[in-house]
Amino acid sequence: MLNFDFYNPTRIFFGKDRLDSIDKQTPKDASVLITYGGGSAKKSGLIDKIKAVLGKRKIYEFGGIEPNPRYETLMKAVEIVRAEKIDFIIAAGGGSVIDGTKFIALAAYYKQDPGDLLKYGLMPIPLTVVDKAVSFGTVLTLPATGSEMNNGAVISYQHGKFAVFSELSFPKFSILDPGLTFTLPKIQVANGVVDAFVHTVEQYITFPADGRLQDRFAEGILRTLIEIGQVTVNEPQNYDARANHVWAATLALNGLIGAGVPQDWATHMIGHELTAMLAIDHGQTLAIILPAMLAVRRDKKRAKLLQYAERVWQITQGGEDEKIDQAIVKTREFFESLGIKTRLSEYGVGADKISAIVEQLKAHGMTALSETRDLTLEISRKILEKAM
Amino acid sequence: MLNFDFYNPTRIFFGKDRLDSIDKQTPKDASVLITYGGGSAKKSGLIDKIKAVLGKRKIYEFGGIEPNPRYETLMKAVEIVRAEKIDFIIAAGGGSVIDGTKFIALAAYYKQDPGDLLKYGLMPIPLTVVDKAVSFGTVLTLPATGSEMNNGAVISYQHGKFAVFSELSFPKFSILDPGLTFTLPKIQVANGVVDAFVHTVEQYITFPADGRLQDRFAEGILRTLIEIGQVTVNEPQNYDARANHVWAATLALNGLIGAGVPQDWATHMIGHELTAMLAIDHGQTLAIILPAMLAVRRDKKRAKLLQYAERVWQITQGGEDEKIDQAIVKTREFFESLGIKTRLSEYGVGADKISAIVEQLKAHGMTALSETRDLTLEISRKILEKAM
Repeated sequence: MLNFDFYNPTRIFFGKDRLDSIDKQTPKDASVLITYGGGSAKKSGLIDKIKAVLGKRKIYEFGGIEPNPRYETLMKAVEIVRAEKIDFIIAAGGGSVIDGTKFIALAAYYKQDPGDLLKYGLMPIPLTVVDKAVSFGTVLTLPATGSEMNNGAVISYQHGKFAVFSELSFPKFSILDPGLTFTLPKIQVANGVVDAFVHTVEQYITFPADGRLQDRFAEGILRTLIEIGQVTVNEPQNYDARANHVWAATLALNGLIGAGVPQDWATHMIGHELTAMLAIDHGQTLAIILPAMLAVRRDKKRAKLLQYAERVWQITQGGEDEKIDQAIVKTREFFESLGIKTRLSEYGVGADKISAIVEQLKAHGMTALSETRDLTLEISRKILEKAM
Repeated sequence: MLNFDFYNPTRIFFGKDRLDSIDKQTPKDASVLITYGGGSAKKSGLIDKIKAVLGKRKIYEFGGIEPNPRYETLMKAVEIVRAEKIDFIIAAGGGSVIDGTKFIALAAYYKQDPGDLLKYGLMPIPLTVVDKAVSFGTVLTLPATGSEMNNGAVISYQHGKFAVFSELSFPKFSILDPGLTFTLPKIQVANGVVDAFVHTVEQYITFPADGRLQDRFAEGILRTLIEIGQVTVNEPQNYDARANHVWAATLALNGLIGAGVPQDWATHMIGHELTAMLAIDHGQTLAIILPAMLAVRRDKKRAKLLQYAERVWQITQGGEDEKIDQAIVKTREFFESLGIKTRLSEYGVGADKISAIVEQLKAHGMTALSETRDLTLEISRKILEKAM
């Protein structure tokens, strides 16, 4: 096992009818900003329910945080926080709203150019220039990113995506009520399953480090997602399936399964370029890149790919390469069973685009990816070719 | 999945050479009390190393916290904390030292009789009368109880054992360096494996609640303990095995695997009486009671026992009862493979003692145990008879 630090102070209130917890967790005299996205949280009545729980506190609203939240949008909310002396923010939404709120919380007290907070690209380097942030909680409406129980955010800025991490950007609490996600469109539910699945794989299919608990927990998340994937997509009111989906997505990226083991994240890095250039949903980009990644990196990842084949997919017959092939096929079939296409060509993207994507990876410094930092642009090109 | 709250703010510093983290995590101007047990932490040089990291801070020491830490002992430390205006405590030891330190931390600012904090028996009822506690960190020397990453303590007081829980009694940090545990006696290592195993079982072999992640994580801990159990006992310098032992013991009782699923704890409750009356080590009492408990409660626990047989022990042949029988036999054999005897008679305890043990359970209000609260004194008697 590798040395690791683990810290996660977010309170989780999981289950049916948990909105009441907001009252106890929000300071009595706080001025509260409620942040949300495109309006479904408003239309569904969720924002009104949150306001009712907040009672007599002074409440402001900021809607319109878009998918892949943009710096310019978020800075409008920062202005409100500063002007109205907001003490507490409640983010009602999915990963984009929560990520955006983390940035708002970190930028609000930062006296210099908040663009400074976005200078490290996607490297997970903790911010050291921020020493105070607005406290915030979340009400999750989309199980996918895990942002509800970690301190990371990905923000779109100047044609790129930038990660922000700080010990000050953990949510104080997150309400995870599976029922609040019942009205999601199928495609978002499916994207959410893929996102949680690939988050887990990025921390699992690397090289062996004798992290037995981490491996077993990762396998547990993957097997759960496989078991409940089609049910949570096709039976949106199935509480038990959705509850396991929600908790799996949170556990996939709350720091636990990655503590003490190598981490890859190359699939995410290449996927981010597809979203930025081609506007393909984040979850879909992962479903496109992961099977290709595993195929191209099969020798680097051989030991863990075999473990994945045997423990996650129960593939016990055949030689090593057969098992790996089968596991990759099953991974692709799983994503497709959720209604997610897994090839670039199926999204209308031709091989002629590959060079431009590789150029973008180069422009963003993505030249030495993966758990071993030896995934070059040349290998990224091969992965993209394989993903056609 | 059942509704649940989860909160665990303890920072973990895991791995080789992590003592330096103490400096950053302890306030610069703090007066620090280092607590420890029978002296092995002193003799091994660990206390001196901690003092070296603490540098110029004012340092006090309190040794002699015994196994099953006693109120009277701990109150002596409380006097030091009060007299010397201690700001921070560092507990260097295993579960007893850490549990004892939690009580010291909670009692120090409590102006009335600290015995008040011990009035709920072993029920996990959070304290509401304490609103301030001394902050503390831990340096773990014995992987077993999980106390290093939870807020619970068990204290011996007036011929009984009493649980203390408070949001103020989470360690601020815990140093988990497997190397610090290499010099433990074999029996303590074996007890530690059994303790972590039974903690996990108490949160797993109950009744099904569709907590798929919780079940998979619990199974992952159990399988890891089975894989590394004999190695960690017989090869004390095997870093990888011990690292997995340490992290398994922490994860077995940090609140995660029990969140959202039923919990039993009857094995612990009966076991505590054996320790109090007969001075049998905690881990040993669990190894005695668990196999008997599972046999007597096989119908109540049937579904999860079958899952345990299949997923943890890979028993796929035979009828239901055969599978359950085999799983119980394998559980007993596992404990015995670590050098732990699993029958009361092997500890020199005759059937004539059973009535007195049942009387003690009655005296302590342990009349409706288990995840379904229907484990009566009569059933406890059957379990004890089965454990002969």
